[in-house]
Amino acid sequence: MTSAAGRLLLIPAPLEQVAEPRAWLCESDRQLAGSLARFYVETPKTARRWLKALPTVLPLQSLQVKPLPPADARTVWQEWLAPMIDGQTVGLLSDAGCPGVADPGALLVRAAHAAGIEVHPLIGPSSLLLALMASGLNGQRFSFQGYLPVERAERLQALERLSRRSAEGQETVVLIETPYRNQAMADSLLQALPGGSQLCIAVDLTGRSQSVLTRPVQAWRRAPPALPRKLPAVFLFLCLPASPAR
Amino acid sequence: MTSAAGRLLLIPAPLEQVAEPRAWLCESDRQLAGSLARFYVETPKTARRWLKALPTVLPLQSLQVKPLPPADARTVWQEWLAPMIDGQTVGLLSDAGCPGVADPGALLVRAAHAAGIEVHPLIGPSSLLLALMASGLNGQRFSFQGYLPVERAERLQALERLSRRSAEGQETVVLIETPYRNQAMADSLLQALPGGSQLCIAVDLTGRSQSVLTRPVQAWRRAPPALPRKLPAVFLFLCLPASPAR
Repeated sequence: MTSAAGRLLLIPAPLEQVAEPRAWLCESDRQLAGSLARFYVETPKTARRWLKALPTVLPLQSLQVKPLPPADARTVWQEWLAPMIDGQTVGLLSDAGCPGVADPGALLVRAAHAAGIEVHPLIGPSSLLLALMASGLNGQRFSFQGYLPVERAERLQALERLSRRSAEGQETVVLIETPYRNQAMADSLLQALPGGSQLCIAVDLTGRSQSVLTRPVQAWRRAPPALPRKLPAVFLFLCLPASPAR
Repeated sequence: MTSAAGRLLLIPAPLEQVAEPRAWLCESDRQLAGSLARFYVETPKTARRWLKALPTVLPLQSLQVKPLPPADARTVWQEWLAPMIDGQTVGLLSDAGCPGVADPGALLVRAAHAAGIEVHPLIGPSSLLLALMASGLNGQRFSFQGYLPVERAERLQALERLSRRSAEGQETVVLIETPYRNQAMADSLLQALPGGSQLCIAVDLTGRSQSVLTRPVQAWRRAPPALPRKLPAVFLFLCLPASPAR
């Protein structure tokens, strides 16, 4: 790799799905990201909205914006990496938050490492991280488990397994859900978790309806949450330590 | 809680431990954090360096900067929360990265929730998140396990347990270590992990010596890393799926 090699720049995207998001990068990173001409993205339409908001130095219609292949595709990454090997820095952008974290992009990043291309992540919003910080739950040990099964009995079973893990390792468990299933997820959590567990529900982080509430499960049961069907939510819980008798 | 209630603002700190860090917050958040007069912090000396760099609107010597109590103290949080209940917004600041995530602060945040105080997290650097993004490892399922035991045999045992967990759930495991033990940690990882596992070592994220490399363990074994004794590192690994015979 020569010093003229291009890098893969990981560009976080805004979390709030609005036409004109507030600035979400620090100034020097914004300029760096805005100077590029080629982007690999999750959804071109969404990416163009964020690139317009950055804004980019080059006119929007002159940018090369290419959607990432499906995760299950047997992608030959060579052609994706060629511009970087030729010296051009390329931006990777997902629809919301950080590429590769609860979002596509990791396979391209892995391929870049294998080809010796430098990967440079920019500081930016992540709903998982913001939720964890704001939850007050254990940030010394936590795990992100993505989406749980949709089918109710399977989901309750998964929650029981995760609540044991949380109790045993004092580990905060972080989950997300498709917005229209937020309420079903909350209902399952209130059913499956022991009453003494702490449950945090973080809605619309960085957005205008942001709300972060951490309460014991028994308190949530007395006043169950009514969750919006169109706003993203993060769910976090921490169970009480397993009793020594276990 | 009246609408005049103060909030608890979670302010990320720079990761690079230098006298004059580059800007690490987006402009509107920088202004918000810089407008405060009272801060609860991990280490006052370090916090004052970041507050000077923000900078704050009020002169540095007029700020109220109070160190957080030790994690094992039986803290009565009432007096800490009183300024917020009285309407003043207070900033929470740890030494590096995001308060409450691999850093102190979560107990105060939890107390704020219990008192009905609004908690507002700002976007900022987290070495864990940047490392995960840049690693190319699985960001759909991961766990942060903090520090492993220092004693070598115990550490190897912990790594074996975590590598089983990684294989079974295809979960990326994220670890940190005190910088002067970075090399010992890398040595243990190369010894304990199966050769086909992917290991990422991320050093000095956002700093001048930033380096992020992801390679199979067997490749690291052929060219073992020489890690700096004074720069922070994040270690991440992902083991190959357990064979169906298990």
